[in-house]
Amino acid sequence: MFITFLTDFGLQDDFVGTCHGVIMRIAPETQIIDITHGIRPGRILQGALVLANTLAYMPRGVHLAVVDPGVGSSRRPLALADAEGRLYVGPDNGLLLPAADRFGGVAAAHELANPAYALERVSRTFHGRDLFAPAAAHLSTGVALAELGPPIDPEELVRLDVPQPEIGVSSIKATILAVDRFGNVALNLTREHLERVDVVPGTRVEIVARDQRYFAVAARTFGDAGVGEILLYEDSYRNVAVAVSRGSAAELLGVEEGSELLIDVGRA
Amino acid sequence: MFITFLTDFGLQDDFVGTCHGVIMRIAPETQIIDITHGIRPGRILQGALVLANTLAYMPRGVHLAVVDPGVGSSRRPLALADAEGRLYVGPDNGLLLPAADRFGGVAAAHELANPAYALERVSRTFHGRDLFAPAAAHLSTGVALAELGPPIDPEELVRLDVPQPEIGVSSIKATILAVDRFGNVALNLTREHLERVDVVPGTRVEIVARDQRYFAVAARTFGDAGVGEILLYEDSYRNVAVAVSRGSAAELLGVEEGSELLIDVGRA
Amino acid sequence: MFITFLTDFGLQDDFVGTCHGVIMRIAPETQIIDITHGIRPGRILQGALVLANTLAYMPRGVHLAVVDPGVGSSRRPLALADAEGRLYVGPDNGLLLPAADRFGGVAAAHELANPAYALERVSRTFHGRDLFAPAAAHLSTGVALAELGPPIDPEELVRLDVPQPEIGVSSIKATILAVDRFGNVALNLTREHLERVDVVPGTRVEIVARDQRYFAVAARTFGDAGVGEILLYEDSYRNVAVAVSRGSAAELLGVEEGSELLIDVGRA
Repeated sequence: MFITFLTDFGLQDDFVGTCHGVIMRIAPETQIIDITHGIRPGRILQGALVLANTLAYMPRGVHLAVVDPGVGSSRRPLALADAEGRLYVGPDNGLLLPAADRFGGVAAAHELANPAYALERVSRTFHGRDLFAPAAAHLSTGVALAELGPPIDPEELVRLDVPQPEIGVSSIKATILAVDRFGNVALNLTREHLERVDVVPGTRVEIVARDQRYFAVAARTFGDAGVGEILLYEDSYRNVAVAVSRGSAAELLGVEEGSELLIDVGRA
Repeated sequence: MFITFLTDFGLQDDFVGTCHGVIMRIAPETQIIDITHGIRPGRILQGALVLANTLAYMPRGVHLAVVDPGVGSSRRPLALADAEGRLYVGPDNGLLLPAADRFGGVAAAHELANPAYALERVSRTFHGRDLFAPAAAHLSTGVALAELGPPIDPEELVRLDVPQPEIGVSSIKATILAVDRFGNVALNLTREHLERVDVVPGTRVEIVARDQRYFAVAARTFGDAGVGEILLYEDSYRNVAVAVSRGSAAELLGVEEGSELLIDVGRA
Repeated sequence: MFITFLTDFGLQDDFVGTCHGVIMRIAPETQIIDITHGIRPGRILQGALVLANTLAYMPRGVHLAVVDPGVGSSRRPLALADAEGRLYVGPDNGLLLPAADRFGGVAAAHELANPAYALERVSRTFHGRDLFAPAAAHLSTGVALAELGPPIDPEELVRLDVPQPEIGVSSIKATILAVDRFGNVALNLTREHLERVDVVPGTRVEIVARDQRYFAVAARTFGDAGVGEILLYEDSYRNVAVAVSRGSAAELLGVEEGSELLIDVGRA
């Protein structure tokens, strides 16, 4: 049985390792796959999108995710099942739903309330270790979802606002969802959005970021652009992204997650 | 069988991965749990405290720890057993003892001196790979502690000085033990220390860091303070810590591991 | 069966975790050893040298390596076998060959061309996930190398230029191959190179980096130098390296990977 694990804990501290320990004490036969622990601290939306993007590449199992700036407040701790039987554990702050929605939506939701499936002492600040990791571990050994606590109406779960692009006649106002290690900048756009303003591979456009204009070209892959050229492409998760061939688009444009970016077709 | 693994190696280089490889060649059935490799380079005390804090959350096994600025000097390489039978491998520089002390203290200590349980060629600068990882791997397969080398009197092991707080009538002078990814600042204090100067949840205090005064409130959890407010709380390892609700206390206060911090109750 | 895994993906994003997921879906019994994912983005030579240095410490298996700035161009995806039967998967850009050369050279090479051993949809920008990880996973379950695609003449594989030192009468011009977390600086030199200019442990030399001269001493280990002293030593992979006892040589000298460094024996 597999547990996948995604957090904003980073790897500098012991947070991730301690959760591994907790899981292994409860479920020594379970295997853990660390999706990433590099979600920026507290960025629920980023965590939700990475979880949604990557789950199709993971073996079925229990999907544990913790980006939890509201730990210690009244937000509920959750376990969910999606329509295909995947299980999820994490806070009720919207983190888990975009992933579950990719697999038919939430079929069942339970609050983590049964102390038999938590550590004996639950701290007020580290529910990853004391509540979520133990619940995921117990689920991975076959404990039934309903054992963990009372059911919750899936309609009542907290949902995130995912920023939507504004599509004009010859321009698109987009939001940056993520910046990766290579400086590639993923937008809240799909190829279909670009096609609505007639942008296809080969089309030249202008992009505006932080009030600066840049020339860019829509391309299929990095190899279609010259070194240092800015390109718009469909990334490996089918988001439209901005890259600089053998460079960092995020650095060149001076943007980060959450920034706005305009794609202007008219003047190009 | 489990080996837990804690170092200051970081994850940028191959040091951790190479030790994993060495362990897997000797003990392919053993599972490794990486507690953390983010201990700041050469900070033995930080490594010792993280190991001591986290071991209760780990399955029993062999606990391998390497923060070893004295590699290549005359410091001895060690394997220990605590009173409850957990095994430890690492340098004789104090790193292992705070953890072993939590489980009844050192019951047996041996110097790693038997070349049968080291790599064939032991370098002068990477004992993690050549000496400590092989010893831990062999222990995990059932080799007896005494096989690794001659016994050492536990009284002769190197011990660290753990900084102690100075408790006044209406103030406490504390030392920062650790700063985590979220900017939370752990002090060398427990709740009992705070209670000795009558600080309980709800008490308002002042803290002084780098000659600047700040208002703060003692709280149970992050949710008890307003956004941006400084709070003193008992963290998940039962240290008193300073946090800023949805912010970084370390950044706000300009402090780091080893800095001093005064908690002043009198004027608050 | 083991897969070792080395990339420049970093651990901030989901790239590594997603490849783990892909491997576990295909080969749930396989164990993955992450050698490192901290190769600097796009630095093929650094990746090749780390792979070559570390493979002797790894269990035999499939060695998956991805440092692939040419993804999406015409560079070929490869699977190789060395003369001792180790298997390798990665791009045809020179990354795999220095490692294979340590074990007798390339005995067989095949292009990854059989879609049965790739993901159903192969993106243009993430061959690690879509092509290389699946191929490695299938090899680890016993699929024959020749199943993956047509053979390639090993002579036609892309090879890297490894920078060579210039050995003078009383000086050596070296290139920095790598800088590690501790600031130790590995050179493209072995102990034999130093001996050719009569440098042995105890010899005092000068080193020139960025036009600045520094005194240094050849030493066996960090303990042979005073705190803050610069030393030349044979590192744990048998490269000559520069270190500062309990400090960072890279910081002191202001150098990075690829920089030149002169060792001057004459004036010392």
